Amino acid sequence: MTEKRASIGARRNPETEAAVLDAAEALVEEKGISGLSMEAVARRARAGKATLYRWWPTRGALLMAVYQRQKRIAGYPDTGTLEGDVKGVLDTLFAHWGRPEGRIFRHIIAASQADPDVLEALEAYRLGRLESLSVLFERAQARGELSGEVPARDMARAVMAMAWLHLLVDRLDADTAGMARTLVRGWTVP
Amino acid sequence: MTEKRASIGARRNPETEAAVLDAAEALVEEKGISGLSMEAVARRARAGKATLYRWWPTRGALLMAVYQRQKRIAGYPDTGTLEGDVKGVLDTLFAHWGRPEGRIFRHIIAASQADPDVLEALEAYRLGRLESLSVLFERAQARGELSGEVPARDMARAVMAMAWLHLLVDRLDADTAGMARTLVRGWTVP
Repeated sequence: MTEKRASIGARRNPETEAAVLDAAEALVEEKGISGLSMEAVARRARAGKATLYRWWPTRGALLMAVYQRQKRIAGYPDTGTLEGDVKGVLDTLFAHWGRPEGRIFRHIIAASQADPDVLEALEAYRLGRLESLSVLFERAQARGELSGEVPARDMARAVMAMAWLHLLVDRLDADTAGMARTLVRGWTVP
Repeated sequence: MTEKRASIGARRNPETEAAVLDAAEALVEEKGISGLSMEAVARRARAGKATLYRWWPTRGALLMAVYQRQKRIAGYPDTGTLEGDVKGVLDTLFAHWGRPEGRIFRHIIAASQADPDVLEALEAYRLGRLESLSVLFERAQARGELSGEVPARDMARAVMAMAWLHLLVDRLDADTAGMARTLVRGWTVP
């Protein structure tokens, strides 16, 4: 039996955490999402399964941790208009999802359709992302740009919906300026 | 060997077509989408594989045919406003997707992430649906309701994006009136 990495209880050991995420990332790369099991990750990272489960209670939580570590998006550009900012978010997301390490996200969404643990982890992540997107709307609000007819959270959800659709149908090259216009401008005469 | 159903060439024999779709539907019900193979469908429907491939060139095309036959949505309500019409579309879709036979759609989207044939069939279907949704915008146009700032096809795509997001995160009980308002009204002051 190989030597196990030390667990220091509820507090995460950064070295073990990195080893686990490295192992999970390598497994996904080699075998796809379905190759990621808690057993395989523990074995490869030489970590205890108890440690894994304490830090990432489900396979879905571990998958999302891999995605988040790779994503490293350091905020969105401040363009001075809400329409420009929405385009900036879409450009940033599409660029990430188009890179090899970003492809995992569509497979996470796919896996979540049949795996409640993955869906739960994805939802926790998604709701956090909606919060982060609120910065766009706070900036627009501060500029006096918002009409006040639509809650910020609903606007954020619509931006996300547009992004996900284009990811899932493999159209990350689509016109993001057009999408931003579609979302931000009113469809009917006021 | 069991007797094969007659093929009448390129013209579809309605009886054979129904038998094939019945068989495909039953297989999906019993084994999930991954249980649907051309071989299994041909065997169960007592049809030739050549016939199957002539009418549905891929497993994805057959899957979409099963979905479309079950869907039977006879148009969308005419509410007199675009916002009401968009809510009507979302209500109709969410009601269908919430029924046992409608659950297949989220699994088709999931399967399409790793199967190019399924994605191609889904895309053909999706682009057709975008066309069908245009009736809403023609009605709004006729009422003089549209601002003209956003092309009809882009509006249709945004409605679809909002619907798909809620299907995929299992929130078909969400507030469709709010979604319609978010989409139709402008976010910024004109």
